[in-house]
Amino acid sequence: METLYVIKIGGNIVDNPALLQECLVAFAQLKGQAILVHGGGKLATEMANKMGVAQTMIEGRRITDLETLNIVTMVYAGSINKNIVAQLQSLGVQAMGLSGADGNLIQAHKRVHPSIDYGFVGEVDTINTALIQVLVKSQMRLVIAPITHDGKGQLLNTNADTIAQSIAVAMAEHFKVHLMYGFEKEGVLLDLNNPSTLFAKIDSQQYNQLKEDKIIFEGMLPKMENAFEALRGGVQSVMIGKAEKMMDVINGKAGTTINL
Amino acid sequence: METLYVIKIGGNIVDNPALLQECLVAFAQLKGQAILVHGGGKLATEMANKMGVAQTMIEGRRITDLETLNIVTMVYAGSINKNIVAQLQSLGVQAMGLSGADGNLIQAHKRVHPSIDYGFVGEVDTINTALIQVLVKSQMRLVIAPITHDGKGQLLNTNADTIAQSIAVAMAEHFKVHLMYGFEKEGVLLDLNNPSTLFAKIDSQQYNQLKEDKIIFEGMLPKMENAFEALRGGVQSVMIGKAEKMMDVINGKAGTTINL
Repeated sequence: METLYVIKIGGNIVDNPALLQECLVAFAQLKGQAILVHGGGKLATEMANKMGVAQTMIEGRRITDLETLNIVTMVYAGSINKNIVAQLQSLGVQAMGLSGADGNLIQAHKRVHPSIDYGFVGEVDTINTALIQVLVKSQMRLVIAPITHDGKGQLLNTNADTIAQSIAVAMAEHFKVHLMYGFEKEGVLLDLNNPSTLFAKIDSQQYNQLKEDKIIFEGMLPKMENAFEALRGGVQSVMIGKAEKMMDVINGKAGTTINL
Repeated sequence: METLYVIKIGGNIVDNPALLQECLVAFAQLKGQAILVHGGGKLATEMANKMGVAQTMIEGRRITDLETLNIVTMVYAGSINKNIVAQLQSLGVQAMGLSGADGNLIQAHKRVHPSIDYGFVGEVDTINTALIQVLVKSQMRLVIAPITHDGKGQLLNTNADTIAQSIAVAMAEHFKVHLMYGFEKEGVLLDLNNPSTLFAKIDSQQYNQLKEDKIIFEGMLPKMENAFEALRGGVQSVMIGKAEKMMDVINGKAGTTINL
């Protein structure tokens, strides 16, 4: 089986033009087939502020009313996605930017929660693996914005970490998939403020202990859960680390490699 | 050769949800292979107003500074494009929304003008016909936003009428292409306020006479020039008419058919 890299880059990278450029250069240097999934970060919040649309976050999740949905669709699938694609094209990468609605790439349903109304937030149902295969095999590098649809005409704001994991798992039948979560930190750290406390490797037993001891910080928990779910779903390897060190993180020379 | 419809829908349709829905239903009913090119209309101006970004129009063209480029990228390639795609998907159409940067679909250069600086406005250079062929032949209906790129990382705001014409001409080598400009009027009218003065057909000789007599109004001139250029470039037929009457306009039962 051929290798496929699924690389997620977080909001803090997308927000920072110099860092983003560094990541895209690293992404361009990856050999073989690769998919980039990007978050949106503070740019959507900034746009909402400019437009005077109040934003509510509950447990790190954006409450997505109709106006906010329009903003994230514009910012994620419009501005961020198309600028990344244009930059990759200038680096000689045949990139194509898609949302989950395009080609029915990612179908989702509106999140149902017993007490919180998250609004137009999607939970992933299906990945169009046939379409991804056709595009990837024609040497196209997909750049995926975290907007999905429900098949009934409704767009949905969807967590980019989960999208990356869902795509990685769905493609694991057809490729040797390596999933990397790129963000602004060195990887999984024992002490957030001390990069020398990096875990080069971490497995589910260690993770459960760290979680129990409340050593792993809140923002890392869903990333780790996604990582283990990807491994259980047949993904070959999952890494977390600095996005601009992509090559080293993938090769285990930097960042944290997650094991079951 | 197979038939390919290239349908442009104008800004006044995109602005109007009920009318847009009618057009998309008509587009969904077209048999065979089809591409939809959409404009942006007043939505970008409205967004600029909300954000307090002043807009300058010269001879109907938007002067596109960096902030305005970001707005049109968000509105055209983000909000409008993805909502159209989601609506088409809900109508059973396998639609994929792309800008000119995606898959290097439309490469352009920044317009150079002796006296006016239009800013980040693109003039079309090349169409990636190979990519369009692959996607169209896999039964994908492309929905194209009027944003192109220069191959050096720069996005460019580009006239949607010209994009539709350029795609129609480029694809004429491989398909029997029919190009329709859908807008809010019945077609080419002798008296703008009287639909019964519709030209069912018009040729270049009549057009030149009408232009000389200043009977054809200003907004129609670039559409007509695009139409004749398409016909000279090998497009089978070009029609102008009400977008929601797509079928009748294509079949010559409504609107204006343009001939050389």
